[in-house]
Amino acid sequence: MKVVKFGGSSLADAAQIEKVQNIIQEDEQRRVVIVSAPGKRNSEDDKVTDLLIALGSSIQAGETDRDIYKKIISRFRVMTEELGLPLSVAEKVKDTIDEAVEMVKDDSSHALDALKACGEDGSARIVSAYLQECGLQASYVNPKEAGIVVRDQPGGALVLEESFDQLYSLRSRNEILVIPGFFGFTPEGELVTFSRGGSDITGSIVAAGLKADLYENFTDVDSVFCVNPMDVDQPKELTSLTYREMRELSYAGFSVFHDEALIPAFKEKIPVCIKNTNNPSAPGTMIVSDLPERESHVVGIASDKGFLNLYVSKYFMNREIGFGRRLLQILEDEGVSFEHAPSGIDDMSVVIREHHLPPEKEEVVVNRIKTELQVDTVMIEREMALIMIVGEGMNQTIGIASRAAAAFREAEVNIEMINQGSSEVSMMFGVKSSGLGKAVKSLYRTFFE
Amino acid sequence: MKVVKFGGSSLADAAQIEKVQNIIQEDEQRRVVIVSAPGKRNSEDDKVTDLLIALGSSIQAGETDRDIYKKIISRFRVMTEELGLPLSVAEKVKDTIDEAVEMVKDDSSHALDALKACGEDGSARIVSAYLQECGLQASYVNPKEAGIVVRDQPGGALVLEESFDQLYSLRSRNEILVIPGFFGFTPEGELVTFSRGGSDITGSIVAAGLKADLYENFTDVDSVFCVNPMDVDQPKELTSLTYREMRELSYAGFSVFHDEALIPAFKEKIPVCIKNTNNPSAPGTMIVSDLPERESHVVGIASDKGFLNLYVSKYFMNREIGFGRRLLQILEDEGVSFEHAPSGIDDMSVVIREHHLPPEKEEVVVNRIKTELQVDTVMIEREMALIMIVGEGMNQTIGIASRAAAAFREAEVNIEMINQGSSEVSMMFGVKSSGLGKAVKSLYRTFFE
Repeated sequence: MKVVKFGGSSLADAAQIEKVQNIIQEDEQRRVVIVSAPGKRNSEDDKVTDLLIALGSSIQAGETDRDIYKKIISRFRVMTEELGLPLSVAEKVKDTIDEAVEMVKDDSSHALDALKACGEDGSARIVSAYLQECGLQASYVNPKEAGIVVRDQPGGALVLEESFDQLYSLRSRNEILVIPGFFGFTPEGELVTFSRGGSDITGSIVAAGLKADLYENFTDVDSVFCVNPMDVDQPKELTSLTYREMRELSYAGFSVFHDEALIPAFKEKIPVCIKNTNNPSAPGTMIVSDLPERESHVVGIASDKGFLNLYVSKYFMNREIGFGRRLLQILEDEGVSFEHAPSGIDDMSVVIREHHLPPEKEEVVVNRIKTELQVDTVMIEREMALIMIVGEGMNQTIGIASRAAAAFREAEVNIEMINQGSSEVSMMFGVKSSGLGKAVKSLYRTFFE
Repeated sequence: MKVVKFGGSSLADAAQIEKVQNIIQEDEQRRVVIVSAPGKRNSEDDKVTDLLIALGSSIQAGETDRDIYKKIISRFRVMTEELGLPLSVAEKVKDTIDEAVEMVKDDSSHALDALKACGEDGSARIVSAYLQECGLQASYVNPKEAGIVVRDQPGGALVLEESFDQLYSLRSRNEILVIPGFFGFTPEGELVTFSRGGSDITGSIVAAGLKADLYENFTDVDSVFCVNPMDVDQPKELTSLTYREMRELSYAGFSVFHDEALIPAFKEKIPVCIKNTNNPSAPGTMIVSDLPERESHVVGIASDKGFLNLYVSKYFMNREIGFGRRLLQILEDEGVSFEHAPSGIDDMSVVIREHHLPPEKEEVVVNRIKTELQVDTVMIEREMALIMIVGEGMNQTIGIASRAAAAFREAEVNIEMINQGSSEVSMMFGVKSSGLGKAVKSLYRTFFE
């Protein structure tokens, strides 16, 4: 059996949902369907999840934005009508939204998560009703009923092990099951969402729990590209890559698939196929556990902006047992997560996502470092970008670092940071954001042309 | 005024001490002399400090090694006789050694440090007596009298700030002062040694305290080479380099000058000159605060073997705030200091000197990491070597990484690790020890030929 997940653009309107129905009907192995919230119908349009978040904020600010509320209700009503579904479907979606709105008004715990989740829930109700309408045996299945149990961290759920056994029992149901993505329930029964884009995670969890033969992830691209098409014109398509490669690429700007979503599939070694709802006959990109040896060891180049470098120097640092640990402790105390912390003899750098260290936190952190660690220098350099080149076998291939470094030189971009060796499948470079585009183009020429 | 330090080979026998006397007499600015313990007279010979350590161990094991004891006493007696000094000088040295031997027998605290320090102390007594014999006004000055106050950490003393003011008052003494290197005294009056080779540190502390115009460090080489002469035939000599460059080079195998010795001089911006006792007219290598721009940005290549890589991987590692800190905490708890800790998305490497993680500690550390951090993988790779290329301005020069990486490729040596960006003046590479020689030769060709 196959678990099939459809992203927001695949559920943006009635026409898209018809495509979804066709895809499901085409292959009787497609037995479990995970859906995102309706996405944009055009570039000017809103994603339903963004609207729900804005609605929640307005309520919390004491001024419920009725326009946004109406927009949301209308999105679902129009879809229902265009698909020729009974009005009761749209009513049910509205009831769920209204219930969440009341929760936010009452300031009850987990209310925002409940409201954010209404987009996926609505999609699932409409898709399941439409499948029935088309004569298929199909049911809406709530994640609570499905058994998706998560740790209680609003907006950052993590699946609990018990979920997988519970999900397995869904195999015995002889019909198409439509499950909303993006959320689960705590052992106490509270609704909690995964991080943004978390429907990919739900799909992966369900595929793992059901021990599916394949997890198909339908998006709006034919395949994964080896580099961001915003940086390079018509880059090469990837027909296959490994879980580890995909995870590293997702981390640094490959938004086609959620960073964390691969893990449940990986643990059960379930192949993942990225496909296009608008061109379902294209083969897509397969993500698997192992691949036969390939000629080139670099399969992708990913990059992301918005990092800063916290630089600290102190004489005798390398004699002070515990210096690095105490520096990281200060960051932890202040709730600042970091990406990398390479150290030299008398100096240490910590790479942090800029939004994790807003100015008010920066002041606290810098002062604590100065007074508690008595450092000689503490400096923050903003507007850094990270570039990762990714590929299995890379770390054991002589000459990759040399070709990569030469590409930076050709682009006349200085390498501020290199982190190689901590990961077996990637090499990371830090550059000033202004040089990012040039560097990525040059790396593409080096490894793919 | 100049502070002059002589290393072990400059004090190995009477002939060498005559050279030392000539050097001091030649320049009346050379007013304060720091001496090491007598070194080897030939390649088969022993260093007095090694003999003292062996003697201490034998006493602690309950079987005082009389042969070693006699060897030590004889070294000083022969020197005294050959220099034509009164027997009382050798007697005084013997008394000091005997006293320390008794302390070790009594198992009193700091006894081993007291015994280890007898080599430098003996040198200072003999040199001061010989200078007097040659008609110079000279005195032996004990570090306690000089005011070298240190933190109480046997074998790893760190100078306390109060020392510098006390040392300054030595300026008023109108004679040549000969101070034994390698040790100081705690505020409670206990003798504590610096780390091995610590006479360089004493020299630097004294030069800083006295605000000397120059700190001359006499060794047995004409100058510092840009690479270890064991790896490359007749490498280029360095006429000048900055403190930061020297410190980075010293760290990774440049044993010509003690890793930590530069810091006191650096803080007072006192230039350091490395010179050769056996060829004092050679200009030597100057180490200074700033240098005019140079054409090549790489001034030296240093390398060291004996590292291991502790590799840890865990899915979701980058979501776990505090993971890196907790890993380093475990190492700290077990007293394991680390060199570098680069991290990827789901993995982290910690580079450790092999002798800091002996097998019994390795087991404890690995078990704690497995159980407390619930990692997926923990692995130790031994026989790693580090190579550093060093030079001011390097981190802002496009193309250095590229040339370096190309050198590794030409040598057909795989780069296991690159750490660039944490230090402003160096770039670090990790390779398997077996490839070290080839890689260093290739880097030398790239940057110096």
